[in-house]
Amino acid sequence: MSLAKSPLAPLAFPDLKSIAGVRFATVSAGIKYQGRTDLMLAEFAPGTTAAGVFTKSLTASAPVLMCRKHLPDHVARALVVNSGNSNAFTGRHGEETVDHILQATADVVGCEVSEVFSASTGVIGEPFAHNVITDTLPSLKSHLGEADWHAAAQAIMTTDTYPKGCTRTADIGGVTVMLNGIAKGSGMIAPDMATMLAYVATDASISGDILQQLLATGADTSFNAITVDSDTSTSDTLMLFATAKAGNPEPASAADPILDDFKQKLDEVLLDLAHQVVRDGEGATKFIEITVTGAATDAAAKTIGLSIANSPLVKTAIAGEDANWGRIVMAVGKAGEQADRDQLEIRVGGVQVTQGGMRVEGYDENPVEAHMKGQDILIEVDVGIGSGAATVWTCDLTHGYISINADYRS
Amino acid sequence: MSLAKSPLAPLAFPDLKSIAGVRFATVSAGIKYQGRTDLMLAEFAPGTTAAGVFTKSLTASAPVLMCRKHLPDHVARALVVNSGNSNAFTGRHGEETVDHILQATADVVGCEVSEVFSASTGVIGEPFAHNVITDTLPSLKSHLGEADWHAAAQAIMTTDTYPKGCTRTADIGGVTVMLNGIAKGSGMIAPDMATMLAYVATDASISGDILQQLLATGADTSFNAITVDSDTSTSDTLMLFATAKAGNPEPASAADPILDDFKQKLDEVLLDLAHQVVRDGEGATKFIEITVTGAATDAAAKTIGLSIANSPLVKTAIAGEDANWGRIVMAVGKAGEQADRDQLEIRVGGVQVTQGGMRVEGYDENPVEAHMKGQDILIEVDVGIGSGAATVWTCDLTHGYISINADYRS
Repeated sequence: MSLAKSPLAPLAFPDLKSIAGVRFATVSAGIKYQGRTDLMLAEFAPGTTAAGVFTKSLTASAPVLMCRKHLPDHVARALVVNSGNSNAFTGRHGEETVDHILQATADVVGCEVSEVFSASTGVIGEPFAHNVITDTLPSLKSHLGEADWHAAAQAIMTTDTYPKGCTRTADIGGVTVMLNGIAKGSGMIAPDMATMLAYVATDASISGDILQQLLATGADTSFNAITVDSDTSTSDTLMLFATAKAGNPEPASAADPILDDFKQKLDEVLLDLAHQVVRDGEGATKFIEITVTGAATDAAAKTIGLSIANSPLVKTAIAGEDANWGRIVMAVGKAGEQADRDQLEIRVGGVQVTQGGMRVEGYDENPVEAHMKGQDILIEVDVGIGSGAATVWTCDLTHGYISINADYRS
Repeated sequence: MSLAKSPLAPLAFPDLKSIAGVRFATVSAGIKYQGRTDLMLAEFAPGTTAAGVFTKSLTASAPVLMCRKHLPDHVARALVVNSGNSNAFTGRHGEETVDHILQATADVVGCEVSEVFSASTGVIGEPFAHNVITDTLPSLKSHLGEADWHAAAQAIMTTDTYPKGCTRTADIGGVTVMLNGIAKGSGMIAPDMATMLAYVATDASISGDILQQLLATGADTSFNAITVDSDTSTSDTLMLFATAKAGNPEPASAADPILDDFKQKLDEVLLDLAHQVVRDGEGATKFIEITVTGAATDAAAKTIGLSIANSPLVKTAIAGEDANWGRIVMAVGKAGEQADRDQLEIRVGGVQVTQGGMRVEGYDENPVEAHMKGQDILIEVDVGIGSGAATVWTCDLTHGYISINADYRS
């Protein structure tokens, strides 16, 4: 099946310049389909540090299990990503496949196996033979080049309708460093394809421990604050690599003020990529931002926000451009977090809809209806009982989602 | 909009005979639409005990708040149910509306206000004037009759595609008693209509405290084990009334062995009605039973079962008759309950699919594919780590659901 480009896609892929110490190669290895780029190798210069955040699924894929094992050293020399098979729920055989792939990668790159990370995206539960990858690696290594961020973003796509990239520069102690990121994801699982994957690289010099703190913090308000369909992939992976080529002064800790600008730019890259994943949500026609304030805690605010974002009835109402704010009340009520009907204030498109436990006096639906016709929908909920706040993002639920996930056999 | 009858509907409404001490009347009061039965009054004989289970929503409707207030006495003389407006999120005005309706009902029936229960189903957040109901009650009272269970089941329908009823007889200490139940619900919220409502009556003599224990226990494995779209109504109500007309010996406690047969038959009525609600799920084409065994606890098993039942990707795969069991693995993994990949055994239609953390050796998809083409889908998951078990029921997620909830404006 071939999908039309999402109406919410950015106009173009941004201009991602080379990052010193990062080289890519991509190839069509024929893992599931012929003639489709499905394998990506990234090589990092010696001295590159790494950070990672992985799926919380208790049935995580074999590559995720291996990444978790290698992460504590925070050292990376190579990354191998394939689409067409997720190598998830493939038992001990799947783990052996990862062993073979990482060993072959270490051999061609000339590094330790523990310095290699990988990810696989595709159907769950299908046995995965390593040869198609291990046989291809030597020629892939010979094609490594520096500026192929666009090709890399395309290689990790599955049913994404556009490649996703983002770039920023940041200042660390007077030295300019670069940040490039790519991502894939289009619903937690597209037909026979799975997973959200995102990789960010910088030429900054930042220790692995600090890098891990920055990434974990940034993920919390970006990739951990988006949902397309509430389903969690067995392969979700977000990694950050720092090649130490920029010559910036080494930060002393994650709280070191010389990292302030870098943190801000990193968060921008993560949020931009996360938004691009939502904008490519399966069947999406609306991009929805939900801000919850006044909750008991920040965590409670996020729970309420995700309850709204994951409600099929809220999502279908928005798909239908229906100003049915009663469904938002319902979603707040079912979230299970502290709430008080009479304190709840709901705004749609900036227009206050409720006050004192009911619709505002003289409610005029016209501006709300006009807002619902746009592509970007804003929902604000003030719970009115505390100071907890959170923002989450999602897309609407349309016939397109059903078509992608039900109408085509795997 | 007019909806075609669900393909999963029972062949006919069962023959519900009169229950001594219960009289019904229904009318088209024009609450939202003209010419549609939208108001039902039930009158119970003096001495009727009552039990209830209500929505866990923190933004519960005004009628639910009032029912909770009246329940502790466990005495009922009347029940008023309307469709067309849920009187939810209507503030103090909504509570005053309920006060007026209950007072007017108490006046025509000749009982205390605290002996009246009510429910409203329809759009959330719309101000609700009581007059349309209070003005109609006197004439409604004059039309009370005994055998109108079918009419009562129809009066509480909103976008249900068929009325739902169930009947059983039971033995209590050598005396035959009757049990009749009716329900409405078709997705947690249909367009502008909300709620699952279910009412069961018996002529048995059972004290209110015991009745409450029986109902709460029965609800746990029936109405609290079904899901259509994971959304929770602000008005969900399940009540049980006992008119004490059958002359059975009074049970001493909920554990009294003379109640064994009654409990079994009550559970049958509750489960049958709950299944009928799922079978009328918005857009449903498949009825799905999910049994989880081997979990850490019964509660964990239910959480895992509902994670599968609420997964849009599992539900769309079943809609597409796609034997994509990897999505079941995904849903188990995201449930957050203890699980072990290598112990997980999944069966679809009775066919074992996984063993040892991977697909079974020599897996033959043909019988599973054949099962997926049927209307009744059976999924069994053994988590393999404990003895917790639970069964839940749901339906598939189809274009019909999107059409009902997104294509039509409220």
